[in-house]
Amino acid sequence: MSLEKNVDSPYIGTQSINLGSQTNCLKMNKTGVAIVGLGTVGQGVAQLLLDHGDRTARHAGRTLWLTHVVVKDIHKPRDVDLPAGIITNDLNKVINDDSVKVVAQLVGGIEPARSIILKLLESGKDVVTANKALLAEHGPEIFDRARQLGRSVAFEASAAGGIPIITNVSQCLSANQIESLHAILNGTSNFILSKMDSEGGDYQSALTLAQKLGLAEADPAMDVDGTDAAQKLAILAHLCFGARVHWSDIPRRGIDSIDERDLKFSKHLGYRIKLIAFAKLAGTGIQLMVSPMLVKTGKPLAEVQANFNAVSVVGDAVGPVFFHGQGAGQMPTASAVVADMIDTAVGRTAITFKTLELWADGHQRVDFAEPGDLEGRYYMRFDVVDQPGVMGQITGRLGQHGISIASVYQHETQNEHQQTVPIVIMTHAAKESAARAAMKQIADMPTVAESPERFRILS
Amino acid sequence: MSLEKNVDSPYIGTQSINLGSQTNCLKMNKTGVAIVGLGTVGQGVAQLLLDHGDRTARHAGRTLWLTHVVVKDIHKPRDVDLPAGIITNDLNKVINDDSVKVVAQLVGGIEPARSIILKLLESGKDVVTANKALLAEHGPEIFDRARQLGRSVAFEASAAGGIPIITNVSQCLSANQIESLHAILNGTSNFILSKMDSEGGDYQSALTLAQKLGLAEADPAMDVDGTDAAQKLAILAHLCFGARVHWSDIPRRGIDSIDERDLKFSKHLGYRIKLIAFAKLAGTGIQLMVSPMLVKTGKPLAEVQANFNAVSVVGDAVGPVFFHGQGAGQMPTASAVVADMIDTAVGRTAITFKTLELWADGHQRVDFAEPGDLEGRYYMRFDVVDQPGVMGQITGRLGQHGISIASVYQHETQNEHQQTVPIVIMTHAAKESAARAAMKQIADMPTVAESPERFRILS
Repeated sequence: MSLEKNVDSPYIGTQSINLGSQTNCLKMNKTGVAIVGLGTVGQGVAQLLLDHGDRTARHAGRTLWLTHVVVKDIHKPRDVDLPAGIITNDLNKVINDDSVKVVAQLVGGIEPARSIILKLLESGKDVVTANKALLAEHGPEIFDRARQLGRSVAFEASAAGGIPIITNVSQCLSANQIESLHAILNGTSNFILSKMDSEGGDYQSALTLAQKLGLAEADPAMDVDGTDAAQKLAILAHLCFGARVHWSDIPRRGIDSIDERDLKFSKHLGYRIKLIAFAKLAGTGIQLMVSPMLVKTGKPLAEVQANFNAVSVVGDAVGPVFFHGQGAGQMPTASAVVADMIDTAVGRTAITFKTLELWADGHQRVDFAEPGDLEGRYYMRFDVVDQPGVMGQITGRLGQHGISIASVYQHETQNEHQQTVPIVIMTHAAKESAARAAMKQIADMPTVAESPERFRILS
Repeated sequence: MSLEKNVDSPYIGTQSINLGSQTNCLKMNKTGVAIVGLGTVGQGVAQLLLDHGDRTARHAGRTLWLTHVVVKDIHKPRDVDLPAGIITNDLNKVINDDSVKVVAQLVGGIEPARSIILKLLESGKDVVTANKALLAEHGPEIFDRARQLGRSVAFEASAAGGIPIITNVSQCLSANQIESLHAILNGTSNFILSKMDSEGGDYQSALTLAQKLGLAEADPAMDVDGTDAAQKLAILAHLCFGARVHWSDIPRRGIDSIDERDLKFSKHLGYRIKLIAFAKLAGTGIQLMVSPMLVKTGKPLAEVQANFNAVSVVGDAVGPVFFHGQGAGQMPTASAVVADMIDTAVGRTAITFKTLELWADGHQRVDFAEPGDLEGRYYMRFDVVDQPGVMGQITGRLGQHGISIASVYQHETQNEHQQTVPIVIMTHAAKESAARAAMKQIADMPTVAESPERFRILS
């Protein structure tokens, strides 16, 4: 069997490729493309374009012809074999080459990435990017400029990597009002929580293991403090709800302060703790947050293991739809970037981009719910002095705030030197403002140790 | 909060709608659309177009203006309120109305559905359909005719209902060679198997319950005998692999002969039995089949409950991606149809349709693997006379065919009147031809009852 019969590589001196798999050996048109930034993802994109030109040609009806690869240091050794003469450190080679229509901008961080994208748009190129931090920070400027110039920006790889969630919410589910989106968008955090859950260790050991396996950066702050998930959620909230939100305005908490005991107690109750990017329409507006939450074992989001990502979307017509895949990594991300390059080359992106609600001057289509008004069920854990009456004081205080208790677990003291015992309370639905006020009062009680814990239960 | 601020319904006498959510209250263009067939799905489509014109307008940049609804009997009572004058029993009203560009053809079965689609294409309309039986039977003719005429056919709803699997494999994963697609595509069968698994009853009781709940037809044959799943798999195999296959050439077995004991034994071994639509590239070509298979508990496909559908795709770049949602039902199917209508109205379908490998005269891009050469692990169950030496005879026979045994379970006799006891054997990977030959020889042994059972284990 040959999957790729009679297909010449676009890099063996031909000017058009012979697409053996189609009827009349169509002579293919070419669309010039370029890559800016040859890091891990850039090398993956180059590899897909160079080694699988037949595949992209089949889906695009034309060859995506890699013409320039722009890097800072042209002498740095890299794992990908590029055709002679295409590597350069001069962005103007791309800017001034009219044959180049689509550019994958894969430089990370804010600058010079932002300036490069604006220059590319101004020179008439359509842009594909995986840079979620840049879009979360300067998306409105970039999207507005692209619209003014009649260009497009595609960014499938900016959220959930290999899961094509951007296309799914902005195209496939377009007949729906999205009612909620609950997602695991940070693979590093999910890896750490999965390890702590399955092997019972503490946060620091799991983080160290993740770093050893290349699944966490030397400085993991952006991943484990919720920033990365909030940046991705901001993009998705624009697309799903027409929300105008800067990522830093999304209430967020990471997993870096998580106590392994809470994973253990949750597991005992039939839940797993996951870092959830949460968006939900409620009566008073949209709720957005990033936080560790309890998810019932057996629910799809609870079963997401290792560094995988997943997105659970509810649409008013389609009902619940669940997506699961690799949220990062060289080839899953490159898969999303190259799909965007194909969509852009054939004209699908130009059509879709016009109707995405992403620009700065757009009218906000939803209001934000007042955070205190949000209703949710809660997991609460208090470390209390082991003496009679304490349980009654705590439950009484919750009752005063109108918080109804679903279940209570007092765990045994783990060793005799411990001064306190943990009490875990699962509540029925209660207002955030009430839960916050009750927690504060209980924490002030002399029989309760500092730093009680509270997590939302995802329903 | 108002999600849909300042948006006039397109059906309150306005000729253009005021899209309040965008900057300049764009005056919207209209694209005329029509529905042929007002059954359950047709009514859902009409409802989305009529009640949520603002939503489709936002995603399409124009109003999808429902101009005609063609039915057989205009007097039949229906649940949807249609604007005056649009219902008709005359297809020519659509054919002759040049303002109508996109038609949702929602009549089931082969004829007159086939003739209607051909007439619509010939009169210059683009067609959206949910009719998988028609596409599986006459897809090549319909797709070829559409291509010749420069028209398009969109069919997202024809496989997996609300899961947008067609767009995902033909657009979002276009940078990948799909390596395998394993799916649960028949909700009726999955409901029956889930019930038998969770409640332990037999096939007939679970089927009766499904019929009572409206999840199985009065004549469920096409659902439970694997036909429906094979028709959907044929469409997906075209898209994923460029395979040219008629659904009836896909080896298939349904769940209608399933023995509840095999679900019980499988469960005991940590597996669930699911009706799997299976496509996989192997060294010698593509393998396609529909059959009940054992899926390890905890794997996403094993956890698909009730009448849900799910698709697990592996791409060589993206790795595994998993989709889960409602595979049928009024609004999930309507969601897919209306998304197709939007894609068609804005021009995305025209672009995509050109590169789909769906037409009859296309070159087959893959070969089919020789069925006997396929390798797989197997679950085998034999009912044997309870006497010494039988186990040795069976395992010896498997050994003669080079089939290596992973584990053996002999279950206790369930009541003393039983003449036989069941032996369950889980094999290591073996060739289909060897497994078939060994099963036949073992079935012929005088100590083994008729009808031993064999299922593939999905790896």
